[in-house]
Amino acid sequence: MQHPIAVYAGSFDPPTLGHLDLMERAAKLFDRVIIAIGRHPTRNPLFSFDERLALLAEVTKDIPNLTVDSFDGLLFQYCEKVGARVIVRGLRAATDFEYELQIAHANADMAPHIDTIFLPTRTNYGFVSASLVREIASHGGDVSHYAPPAVSEALRKKFGRG
Amino acid sequence: MQHPIAVYAGSFDPPTLGHLDLMERAAKLFDRVIIAIGRHPTRNPLFSFDERLALLAEVTKDIPNLTVDSFDGLLFQYCEKVGARVIVRGLRAATDFEYELQIAHANADMAPHIDTIFLPTRTNYGFVSASLVREIASHGGDVSHYAPPAVSEALRKKFGRG
Amino acid sequence: MQHPIAVYAGSFDPPTLGHLDLMERAAKLFDRVIIAIGRHPTRNPLFSFDERLALLAEVTKDIPNLTVDSFDGLLFQYCEKVGARVIVRGLRAATDFEYELQIAHANADMAPHIDTIFLPTRTNYGFVSASLVREIASHGGDVSHYAPPAVSEALRKKFGRG
Amino acid sequence: MQHPIAVYAGSFDPPTLGHLDLMERAAKLFDRVIIAIGRHPTRNPLFSFDERLALLAEVTKDIPNLTVDSFDGLLFQYCEKVGARVIVRGLRAATDFEYELQIAHANADMAPHIDTIFLPTRTNYGFVSASLVREIASHGGDVSHYAPPAVSEALRKKFGRG
Amino acid sequence: MQHPIAVYAGSFDPPTLGHLDLMERAAKLFDRVIIAIGRHPTRNPLFSFDERLALLAEVTKDIPNLTVDSFDGLLFQYCEKVGARVIVRGLRAATDFEYELQIAHANADMAPHIDTIFLPTRTNYGFVSASLVREIASHGGDVSHYAPPAVSEALRKKFGRG
Amino acid sequence: MQHPIAVYAGSFDPPTLGHLDLMERAAKLFDRVIIAIGRHPTRNPLFSFDERLALLAEVTKDIPNLTVDSFDGLLFQYCEKVGARVIVRGLRAATDFEYELQIAHANADMAPHIDTIFLPTRTNYGFVSASLVREIASHGGDVSHYAPPAVSEALRKKFGRG
Repeated sequence: MQHPIAVYAGSFDPPTLGHLDLMERAAKLFDRVIIAIGRHPTRNPLFSFDERLALLAEVTKDIPNLTVDSFDGLLFQYCEKVGARVIVRGLRAATDFEYELQIAHANADMAPHIDTIFLPTRTNYGFVSASLVREIASHGGDVSHYAPPAVSEALRKKFGRG
Repeated sequence: MQHPIAVYAGSFDPPTLGHLDLMERAAKLFDRVIIAIGRHPTRNPLFSFDERLALLAEVTKDIPNLTVDSFDGLLFQYCEKVGARVIVRGLRAATDFEYELQIAHANADMAPHIDTIFLPTRTNYGFVSASLVREIASHGGDVSHYAPPAVSEALRKKFGRG
Repeated sequence: MQHPIAVYAGSFDPPTLGHLDLMERAAKLFDRVIIAIGRHPTRNPLFSFDERLALLAEVTKDIPNLTVDSFDGLLFQYCEKVGARVIVRGLRAATDFEYELQIAHANADMAPHIDTIFLPTRTNYGFVSASLVREIASHGGDVSHYAPPAVSEALRKKFGRG
Repeated sequence: MQHPIAVYAGSFDPPTLGHLDLMERAAKLFDRVIIAIGRHPTRNPLFSFDERLALLAEVTKDIPNLTVDSFDGLLFQYCEKVGARVIVRGLRAATDFEYELQIAHANADMAPHIDTIFLPTRTNYGFVSASLVREIASHGGDVSHYAPPAVSEALRKKFGRG
Repeated sequence: MQHPIAVYAGSFDPPTLGHLDLMERAAKLFDRVIIAIGRHPTRNPLFSFDERLALLAEVTKDIPNLTVDSFDGLLFQYCEKVGARVIVRGLRAATDFEYELQIAHANADMAPHIDTIFLPTRTNYGFVSASLVREIASHGGDVSHYAPPAVSEALRKKFGRG
Repeated sequence: MQHPIAVYAGSFDPPTLGHLDLMERAAKLFDRVIIAIGRHPTRNPLFSFDERLALLAEVTKDIPNLTVDSFDGLLFQYCEKVGARVIVRGLRAATDFEYELQIAHANADMAPHIDTIFLPTRTNYGFVSASLVREIASHGGDVSHYAPPAVSEALRKKFGRG
């Protein structure tokens, strides 16, 4: 059997400890995992595209079979380009699931040879999201339970408290 | 990296085309997949334990890296016994998900080295379940869209129409 | 256009004001509505099959284009037998919906010429169910807000308070 | 019985095969079906109001008892103006349902003589939405499984690939 | 036991009868209830911050143990400042619940001494929301079933019909 | 203001750490909390009614303003008998919520002077239920993370491992 390459895509603005937990778990399941940031021009991110690439590279530097990349266009097109057969998604709640299921079905219809797997978020990260981390940090709150140290520091600098 | 063994457990009373689709997809993701029927004494199944083992062996005979087994006790204990690191579950709907998430969290708490992955059911099998197949067959309906041929035939015999 | 006949099936043990509201609304949408009680032998109902037929006939007697009937087997087979093209279902909550959607998809797959429509339960009946009515009545509670008068009276007799 | 007129409202930016399936099914249930595009000034649509009217007229031209129209204001006010007694809505997932139920309850409260019926989306269109179609087309993907031919062509022109 | 102070926060743009029902119920549960409007600069409200403060003061003037206030920053920080130990939230539907649960878990993690309680919206207000009230009023509809008299009047003035 | 008495009802077969967490939190919100076991004759519990009363008394003995009791009939009738104005319920997941909301609405309709409040289960107990605890213990698993010490010991004795 040819071992599949897996892609975990997102905007990671910024990466959280929930994201990092999924990355570590995916890296135990598959030979090679690619973290892919979508370059969607219409977003208004807190961290620039280059800042997010650098943060991801920093927080994942101890996971040997994981690389960081970016993509334009549709996710399944990127998977085909890099030879990935698996899309990894995290699931926190039932409302997440319905949206994710629609995307997974659309991808399966357009690219039947690529499969989507869902990893359940750990209980202690079930409420953690990038938007929560941004909101807490913007008010000077402590995000060290929710974000890796490099991200916490970047947030302090971003909000003028560093 | 040591490639993980995956376990897909259930009662499979009887196996459906939805189950079979998940088995084939799991077998493309992992080196070795074990289908494990729980021996729970309190159930009142349509097919006996031995009948279900035989049906599963028959319908999966073309998947080389998949074997059929049974287990007593808790699923994570079985995974530890056979050296499996991955539990595979299918997800059809959001209500499925909430129940499955609770089980996955319980297993992660009791056995942190074992992970659960969810595969989304294909759209054409989203409404297929073993209980639906049993109900249709019990009324003489045609289940050939929902169950493998060997199962359809076993159902016809079971309900005195074979 | 040939106007469709609609079937509203259930166990109606007993019929509630929520059921009755759906019947009245269905009767405004379609030329002819059939209320069909399933004869499933494995149930352990509070009211016998004949009692439920009589209660339904009584509570719907003022709806001219509605009749009461019973069926064995699968619902779509019954619809074909009576020439109905529409299955009517009530929806109270999102968990109802997921189950109902699976049944509707199964019926659409087996009988594509029959469609399922869902009517949303009115807000004041959203919490009313036959099992709630049975439980309240069994403890001597007042069900007159949740069940038609004939049903309230039948419940009082059933529980020895009539 | 006076047969009801049904209204199926939406923004249809653009119409999908999921929308079209619902239109065809609604046209089998009711004597007359009106497709009504809301003229909400605050939207930023991909297709202009006139383009959407023309696309809808084109894709529904073979359904004799269906007409296309537009409306300002609240949907129930439009229904009253055209004498419609039924609002038709499609349901794809449980999260859809909760939102739709709130709207249906609000309409029932403001206009009790108008009823809302829900049609379940077919399994093969469960993941199809106008926003998915726009996103795929914007990246040059093939939308022919999800949109009528006239819409696919309009999308190719819109994104400079026609 | 020291009786807890409860905070019910929101944007209240405008306050609805659903909000008011929750306020009255909270005031029966706790010695003191504070209604707190968040001063989030990024919103684009229909009513200005001062208008909403005045409307809230008007509609709650008969609840003696309730006061109206505003806050910047994170809600748990505000609770600590005023000595509140309880956050009160209304729940209308399951999708509300998942979002609210995430927020409650985040607050419990950051401030374990503050608890969140949910009050279920009454059935007749289950579909009422500030955005629905704004939309109906913007089209000249009657909102007197959904908003207190002072709010209905303010909406008429706002939309040039007063 | 007269401070309300709160009732937290359930079958507690057996009490879990999730139950105990809710009890401790409820006891911080209200002057007096009553834990009420329903005496429903049709259940087939693992622990007898008297065993459960004794276990509850043992695990709650350090909460001064909490008492343990039992009830027949409908919960709102019991609340009226003991003068309670608040029903406390725990919420783990969205599917819980829909069921609980129906019960809360029914109770509000039958007894408008009694209110229901929901407390969100803590993240680390979100997957803990009495049935999970029973299942783990029946297979000799360790339940000390999910049940109080007295319950763990009672389970060991019950399953012949004590």
